[in-house]
Amino acid sequence: MKAWIITIGNEVLIGKVINTNAAWLARKLTNLGIEIKRIVVVPDNMDEIVKMFQEAISNADIIISTGGLGPTFDDMTNFALAKALGREVEINKEAFEEIKKKYEKAGLPLTEERVKMSKMPKGAVSLHNPVGTAPGIMVRYDDKLIIALPGVPREMEAIFEESIEKILLNKSKKRLIEKSMVIRGVPESSLAPIISEAMKRYFPLYIKSHPRGEELKSSVIEVHISGMNGDELSKKIEEVIRFITEKVSKIGGKIN
Amino acid sequence: MKAWIITIGNEVLIGKVINTNAAWLARKLTNLGIEIKRIVVVPDNMDEIVKMFQEAISNADIIISTGGLGPTFDDMTNFALAKALGREVEINKEAFEEIKKKYEKAGLPLTEERVKMSKMPKGAVSLHNPVGTAPGIMVRYDDKLIIALPGVPREMEAIFEESIEKILLNKSKKRLIEKSMVIRGVPESSLAPIISEAMKRYFPLYIKSHPRGEELKSSVIEVHISGMNGDELSKKIEEVIRFITEKVSKIGGKIN
Repeated sequence: MKAWIITIGNEVLIGKVINTNAAWLARKLTNLGIEIKRIVVVPDNMDEIVKMFQEAISNADIIISTGGLGPTFDDMTNFALAKALGREVEINKEAFEEIKKKYEKAGLPLTEERVKMSKMPKGAVSLHNPVGTAPGIMVRYDDKLIIALPGVPREMEAIFEESIEKILLNKSKKRLIEKSMVIRGVPESSLAPIISEAMKRYFPLYIKSHPRGEELKSSVIEVHISGMNGDELSKKIEEVIRFITEKVSKIGGKIN
Repeated sequence: MKAWIITIGNEVLIGKVINTNAAWLARKLTNLGIEIKRIVVVPDNMDEIVKMFQEAISNADIIISTGGLGPTFDDMTNFALAKALGREVEINKEAFEEIKKKYEKAGLPLTEERVKMSKMPKGAVSLHNPVGTAPGIMVRYDDKLIIALPGVPREMEAIFEESIEKILLNKSKKRLIEKSMVIRGVPESSLAPIISEAMKRYFPLYIKSHPRGEELKSSVIEVHISGMNGDELSKKIEEVIRFITEKVSKIGGKIN
């Protein structure tokens, strides 16, 4: 199961907003055993969003976008997604009822901008937004699952946890297992051959070093070991840690 | 001047690391008047990195990558960039000398992993790394400028500020101007038509609303107004702020 995450919004491209949404989603999907192959940020531009959805659909099983579901002129994810799928846009009844109820309760009329948030590609499922007004969109297309979530982090997270997590939990049978160790006093370049050897020995585990200090002064390296599924891999992770600990101790490194 | 930012690293795709590098670079480039058209995160995989460099070269004038310049097996940005450009890899003399000096000073031998960090596409310029060991890479290809920086934020920032900023400052004649205003007590969906009108009136300024509170309870919206260059635009921004302030006051909103 391969996923692409599409972040839609000029605010990310001008560096005004750090893309925490993508990191949050990536963490969630990874824990569910789904492999994220690409994260991409595109501007609030119809052609760019359409092209990116199409590219993602050709390459991934699961596509999750964030942003562009609100009421302003530059919110166009619903229309772009419909265009990418070659489907018409229609007012989704469920979304419309949800939006109508929320604004009625607040004593506000259903303006064009508010109705717009209920427009979705034909055949889409509206995802209830428990904290905001714009519902999420879920569409199945062949065997692909496409989910469009709002860009406001609280709303994105709430919809994901309420409606998406359980669907993905059923779709993916894999689960991530991982462990980190911290090595001090050994430059990353001295650790490199040890990690290469460990990678070969303990395939299919993935071992990656993350320098946290300085290579030549006070080297601190986090080694992250991860794999998908199974008690065997858990045992293997313990073995890798013993292997690296032993090798690193020999060249003067300290663990933790 | 259009730019793509390529982030290389599995740690970002599994949500272990938030992509602050891309945001930092995006901010820097935007301030220099360079338009970032795409930010993309790819895994530590040769084919994916090569393809992404090629796609970026076809679409952007400036390409900046971060990550994959270190000593471990999964650091392969130098090789991938060479492959993308159809150039051979060679030991860059300047990079080699820098690396040799640093490790010699620390009393460490020049192992294969350390020499690897001096390998660059033929014709590349080595960018001095004032805080770490792996130099950055700069290559010109036709009229494109490609820059590969390390993934460690301190190193990436130091190289950018020491070697890249002044080059881009000369390349781009545009500068960003921007201003934000905060509007309280008006839902974003009520603000939407006002912003649409302001966008039309004050072209080429770009106006974007960012909801910070809740649409129907305690609405707080940051309105960000930006454009490239010129005193005229600065004056225009003041006009937009007056225009929006007036319209918003009429529907009960408060500024700041």
